Amino acid sequence: MKKHNFNAGPSILPREAIEKSAEAILDFNGIGLSILEISHRSKEFDAVNIEAMALFTELLNIPDGYKVIFLGGGASTQFFTVPYNLLQKKAAYLVTGSWAKKASKEAKFFGEVQIVASSEDKNFTYVPKNFVIPTDADYFHITTNNTIFGTELKKDIDSPVTLVADMSSDIFSRPVDIAKYGLIYGGAQKNLAPAGLTFVIVKEEILGKVDRPIPTMVDYRTHIKNDSMFNTPPVFAIFTALQTLKWLKALGGVGEIQKKNIEKANYLYDAIDESKLFVATVPLEEDRSLMNVCFVMKEEYKELEKDFQTFSSERGMIGIKGHRDVGGFRASLYNALPLESVKALVSCMQEFEAKH
Amino acid sequence: MKKHNFNAGPSILPREAIEKSAEAILDFNGIGLSILEISHRSKEFDAVNIEAMALFTELLNIPDGYKVIFLGGGASTQFFTVPYNLLQKKAAYLVTGSWAKKASKEAKFFGEVQIVASSEDKNFTYVPKNFVIPTDADYFHITTNNTIFGTELKKDIDSPVTLVADMSSDIFSRPVDIAKYGLIYGGAQKNLAPAGLTFVIVKEEILGKVDRPIPTMVDYRTHIKNDSMFNTPPVFAIFTALQTLKWLKALGGVGEIQKKNIEKANYLYDAIDESKLFVATVPLEEDRSLMNVCFVMKEEYKELEKDFQTFSSERGMIGIKGHRDVGGFRASLYNALPLESVKALVSCMQEFEAKH
Repeated sequence: MKKHNFNAGPSILPREAIEKSAEAILDFNGIGLSILEISHRSKEFDAVNIEAMALFTELLNIPDGYKVIFLGGGASTQFFTVPYNLLQKKAAYLVTGSWAKKASKEAKFFGEVQIVASSEDKNFTYVPKNFVIPTDADYFHITTNNTIFGTELKKDIDSPVTLVADMSSDIFSRPVDIAKYGLIYGGAQKNLAPAGLTFVIVKEEILGKVDRPIPTMVDYRTHIKNDSMFNTPPVFAIFTALQTLKWLKALGGVGEIQKKNIEKANYLYDAIDESKLFVATVPLEEDRSLMNVCFVMKEEYKELEKDFQTFSSERGMIGIKGHRDVGGFRASLYNALPLESVKALVSCMQEFEAKH
Repeated sequence: MKKHNFNAGPSILPREAIEKSAEAILDFNGIGLSILEISHRSKEFDAVNIEAMALFTELLNIPDGYKVIFLGGGASTQFFTVPYNLLQKKAAYLVTGSWAKKASKEAKFFGEVQIVASSEDKNFTYVPKNFVIPTDADYFHITTNNTIFGTELKKDIDSPVTLVADMSSDIFSRPVDIAKYGLIYGGAQKNLAPAGLTFVIVKEEILGKVDRPIPTMVDYRTHIKNDSMFNTPPVFAIFTALQTLKWLKALGGVGEIQKKNIEKANYLYDAIDESKLFVATVPLEEDRSLMNVCFVMKEEYKELEKDFQTFSSERGMIGIKGHRDVGGFRASLYNALPLESVKALVSCMQEFEAKH
């Protein structure tokens, strides 16, 4: 049976990237060694690293003055690394979900934190509007896509202070006006690579402005200076990231993938909105994530949720159980997920509905 | 031509672990999905994580009161994480190489650092003896194997204060009396897994004794509490680590591998000592690393080094160029390297010597 992979992350990657990764594990580039057992300083891996950084820069159209770095670990590490590097007195945070809240908590270790707005009052089912960004903040932090709650800031906002964004779950899903941001970071395990790799896009001029001493590995300048090779990087994850980026380029880049992502998300949201059983947890269309579509059974059909879980799972739907903070269902529609899988899910929902 | 992989790290892994990793990338456990695209919270990966921690504990005979955690990133991150968690007033460091020196530098961000002894006067070609560990230090830090310089502290030392060890390049190469240590850490990319994974073995009672607030991701207790699943761990590297640990267990464990490692290292050191062309950079037998054998051409034959580099490379020897801080050659003989490869290298050296 064909599996449709709606996992929220780690999540579906292009089949091509997966196959090339498996090949490289058995024999990398025909050198008779595995990608897992070669030096990160070998000319073979150096070429991978350089090409990955270049393609990353090209596809996101990153302007001069910015650097891309690849680090080990995940985005959670950036929650404290960002304020370590940037917070002198005060930072402002927009709290749109659990990860945004966690990020704001870590900043408190380093200075004053102002929560500009929060949507926690309604379990993060909307994105706050009309908030005022304090002009005396060292930076303003947003989480562009909220994986758990299915909301997304789909437009690049204007900020009077350095804008910092966690884009773990929507990077490469749409064009981004990088010039509006001072720093963008994210874990790679959604639209890019297996878990264990974090990317940081940083405008160099915002660094070096805080008084505190910064441990070497936490200091972004260390990794910029060394092209992400200060210490051993997560070699294999960078290799896979390169394969994903090549796939994305061949497909036409972020502009093209955005069209596909809109088509996929609309297809599913429309089906939910027309359904008698299901309801989307995020009411406002402009707040709805294109990456993670959250929905539950209407109150009167709540007891059918377990049945639909089983029903859909028997039809090859994987990873659609909602996060415990939301309940119900979540279908993650990352770049590599084909429209075909969304159609399969919708058919499954309709079939289930017809039965009840 | 058969390749002999003497890379210093990332380095040779058991072929079985490599093949199983490639298989799991195409289809993990027959579930129809890649190990790269499943949730770290899936029951399938949970089983991998738990088995890996259990086997890690079993093979190293880790006593009660200790916890094993798997983290993203590399050992360099531990250079500041260790003092963040443990350094209240003063830490003591034994400086036996570049990594040990780097570790001691990061500790200075958090308190006083006393260098108990250093072998930098002779380019780290020996391990200092008869040093006195200050009893007022919060901990004493050692680097058991010095990958760059080819020295190793092969015996577990007695310390009057908490003993902390970076065992990146000799973990699982020999039995270790864990009870003598408070904390052991290391990057996984030598004897365990691909780059991007770090292990920490920590005696729980040494934690929570410093006054400073610790960011969540830096606090070892976060990861202990969550069985290394506070955030998304490096899933694939943990999977490969499990395959390596299974291989090691089937082979008889660390006691058995130690015998093989001694045999391999002796074979190579003996050949170097008997050679007219080559000389080991570490004179004292007890200081010589079983993992990284460093050697150079004798002064009068120095100009032949380049020739031997080419000569050996044409015969399938990979990664034997010495680190720039030492020059000459370095053959890394990690667990997965067969004696056959050492014999091939020695033949190659003898053949070269016969020609000159």
